[in-house]
Amino acid sequence: MPHVATERFLTELAAIVGPRGLLTDPTDIAPYAEDWRRLYRGHPPAVVRPATTQEVAEVVRACAAAGVGIVPQGGNTSMVGGAVPAEDGSEIVLALARLNRILEIDPVDMTLTLQAGVTLKAAQEAAAAKGCLLPLSIASEGTAQIGGVLATNAGGNNTIRYGNARDLVLGLEVVLPDGEVWEGLRRLRKDNTGYCLRQLFVGAEGTLGIITAAVLKLAPLPREVEVALCALPSAEAALDLFSRFQAQDPAALQAFEYMSGSGMDLVLAHIPGSALPLVTPADHYVLVELASPRVGAGLRPALEEVLGAALEEGVVLDAAIAASGAQRAAIWKLREEHSEAQKRAGASVKNDVSVPVSRVPALLHRAAEACEALLPGIRIVPFGHLGDGNIHFNLVQPEGMDPAAFLARDQDLMAAVGAVVRDLGGSFSAEHGVGRLKPAMLPGWRGGAELETMRRIKQALDPHGIMNPGKVLP
Amino acid sequence: MPHVATERFLTELAAIVGPRGLLTDPTDIAPYAEDWRRLYRGHPPAVVRPATTQEVAEVVRACAAAGVGIVPQGGNTSMVGGAVPAEDGSEIVLALARLNRILEIDPVDMTLTLQAGVTLKAAQEAAAAKGCLLPLSIASEGTAQIGGVLATNAGGNNTIRYGNARDLVLGLEVVLPDGEVWEGLRRLRKDNTGYCLRQLFVGAEGTLGIITAAVLKLAPLPREVEVALCALPSAEAALDLFSRFQAQDPAALQAFEYMSGSGMDLVLAHIPGSALPLVTPADHYVLVELASPRVGAGLRPALEEVLGAALEEGVVLDAAIAASGAQRAAIWKLREEHSEAQKRAGASVKNDVSVPVSRVPALLHRAAEACEALLPGIRIVPFGHLGDGNIHFNLVQPEGMDPAAFLARDQDLMAAVGAVVRDLGGSFSAEHGVGRLKPAMLPGWRGGAELETMRRIKQALDPHGIMNPGKVLP
Repeated sequence: MPHVATERFLTELAAIVGPRGLLTDPTDIAPYAEDWRRLYRGHPPAVVRPATTQEVAEVVRACAAAGVGIVPQGGNTSMVGGAVPAEDGSEIVLALARLNRILEIDPVDMTLTLQAGVTLKAAQEAAAAKGCLLPLSIASEGTAQIGGVLATNAGGNNTIRYGNARDLVLGLEVVLPDGEVWEGLRRLRKDNTGYCLRQLFVGAEGTLGIITAAVLKLAPLPREVEVALCALPSAEAALDLFSRFQAQDPAALQAFEYMSGSGMDLVLAHIPGSALPLVTPADHYVLVELASPRVGAGLRPALEEVLGAALEEGVVLDAAIAASGAQRAAIWKLREEHSEAQKRAGASVKNDVSVPVSRVPALLHRAAEACEALLPGIRIVPFGHLGDGNIHFNLVQPEGMDPAAFLARDQDLMAAVGAVVRDLGGSFSAEHGVGRLKPAMLPGWRGGAELETMRRIKQALDPHGIMNPGKVLP
Repeated sequence: MPHVATERFLTELAAIVGPRGLLTDPTDIAPYAEDWRRLYRGHPPAVVRPATTQEVAEVVRACAAAGVGIVPQGGNTSMVGGAVPAEDGSEIVLALARLNRILEIDPVDMTLTLQAGVTLKAAQEAAAAKGCLLPLSIASEGTAQIGGVLATNAGGNNTIRYGNARDLVLGLEVVLPDGEVWEGLRRLRKDNTGYCLRQLFVGAEGTLGIITAAVLKLAPLPREVEVALCALPSAEAALDLFSRFQAQDPAALQAFEYMSGSGMDLVLAHIPGSALPLVTPADHYVLVELASPRVGAGLRPALEEVLGAALEEGVVLDAAIAASGAQRAAIWKLREEHSEAQKRAGASVKNDVSVPVSRVPALLHRAAEACEALLPGIRIVPFGHLGDGNIHFNLVQPEGMDPAAFLARDQDLMAAVGAVVRDLGGSFSAEHGVGRLKPAMLPGWRGGAELETMRRIKQALDPHGIMNPGKVLP
């Protein structure tokens, strides 16, 4: 078990990272001690901010020798308390922010090599400056750093086309729990020379080692983009429409986002400047975006072909195709303001769940029924990445109910949604990970041989348990 | 260390798998004791052919209790002796061939769920019967089985578009070295609930557990296909042409295959019915295939646009676009007959190597120089998947040289190619894996923290070392 850090140990850290690299003043430490959701507040004796991989390795060796736990921290935008240190002062925070160099962009290999502390936004901009797309986009991208994005296997709106963060990783550099450095910054598209270590560190949330640099795949920038908003009669119709676009050309399908009529109503009511570009409101909406790097890809006729047939067959009730960049942005705004509109409508309980794509309609029906049975008047506001089977099954308090009384029901409501998701072969955390919030769910959902195998791997790589203690594994 | 199997142990196995499931007669065993390359010949006391995952688990438990090594075997088409048992009789073969059921094809989820013993060809056909493409194709697909394809992370011609086998895996069922079954047949596109175990078993060549079933991603069948053969002045021009197609639309780029003039000459000389559809022979050729599931994708003008500009700028000397399925097949034949033509030209030394795509021209120049310096008159016949940086850098004996004398130089020649590959940041095994042939290369190429981490994982999951002993790890 980790030990509380001593004065002598802190002096040792200062010798490694220099005075600029070690924070011990409570005021300086405060921003690292809790994350933006403020679910937990830790009390680290120090925050180290190494400037090089070598310094990271030396800090890890010092912590390993002293038995001090290490919480790797990037932009600190975890949804599940994944980067918050312990309350008992037994863990230091290791912030990667100073490892913030773009190391190389290769437009032939279509790779971006960069350090862990670069923000996702800065990485996107560096790629764009060379005419390339880093095809990963999440709401926190201005703050989230690459190391955290990879450690949590971030998803987002374009996963349907480009995959999760995991799918973009060609190589990694990782400081292991014993302070050794795995220099795996390879950029090979084919390499069958032993176990695939990189995918073990991606998604491990810093519990197996610290990602210090990565090689990511790039894509060409889209040059043709089409966006449409569709009104549909049912969740089944939304799935049917997805299938039609998927059959036509999944490589052109950049986003396929579901919104409920209830969620759209909240946006239209609470977000100034929002307007529905359709004549008649509906109970279900879909935002579809087609994109291609190739001018002349014919996406407009492709979109019209699918929508035309769907309209004729009653699968789509109405549809608006954006005729300009401004119209595209206006349609996207309806989707992106869902969280803000919900916030303004009252207290929310959020469920980041996934099921097989074919079971999204069943999820929407059954989870709604279960929640309404628990709390009549509850507002069911599901939205999200239908094409990935990933629905943010959010719940807003009944109008007029006391927010605290509503939030007191959160465990019941989450359990009700969870039971449906589980029955449909789904996941209790599609995008956000496990962190400190959800390790208790692993035995029930991923127990038996799976959890036992995870434990064995953790024990093998981090026998003293110093890497992000208390996260992921129960 | 594994022990030699006793009569009593074989009786125990027979009780698990039944008389049909246990082979002990030397004649019956022979086909399982060596693979098609005949690099090694083992002496297993028995071959077990379980019919269910439960039987696999019971066999593994019995072997674990008895300390007997297990060699999982699919189609036995390994290039590196990956499925051959030991000579000393200490290992049984566990053949997956009877686990040969297609479990489910879901055209909405675009998933194929199947058992490990289904051949790749049968899996492709089952997908095609539902209008879907299983986008993985290798030369041995008629014999290779899904379990082996995944355990070796197979590649092939369409990796450039769809990725390696690894990229197609959504879920796995695996019998672990202690006989427990990991039931991970999930079909989720997003699931961040702990360590990514599936990618640890993919590519582990059966050393960490036995894959018994999988969920694979499908794609829609291509409906527009264009194929061209191009003659180019240099390797640099071939890379330049690749970059142009990649920038235009990587999602349409189904194959980009390099061939040398020397290789093409061998095909034209030795393969009846082969003909060059170009006026002037060249030193370098590329086969490019564009494909889309969408009719109206405009691939013909896209192809002509890139080729037109490349011709004008001297990047391409001449090009022929196939005008029919027969012409497409004729162009593909020139590529596919490369191995056969080489065989007819004499003894060969083969190198399945990869480098970053941008370094393929350097590989071609420097490896050729190194080999010519070692053996003047040697015929350099590189070909393969330029778009993946994966070149089969093959060497044919000088004309008139004694084949045995040439093959006696194989270690020198492979070392010379390897030195260049390594200097360029490449891999000594792009597609074929490590098996029994190449574990000795790991300390030099993947040593230090990487090999140590692999060893720890092996020790953690298979502490008694019964799973495919002697493969992958040195």
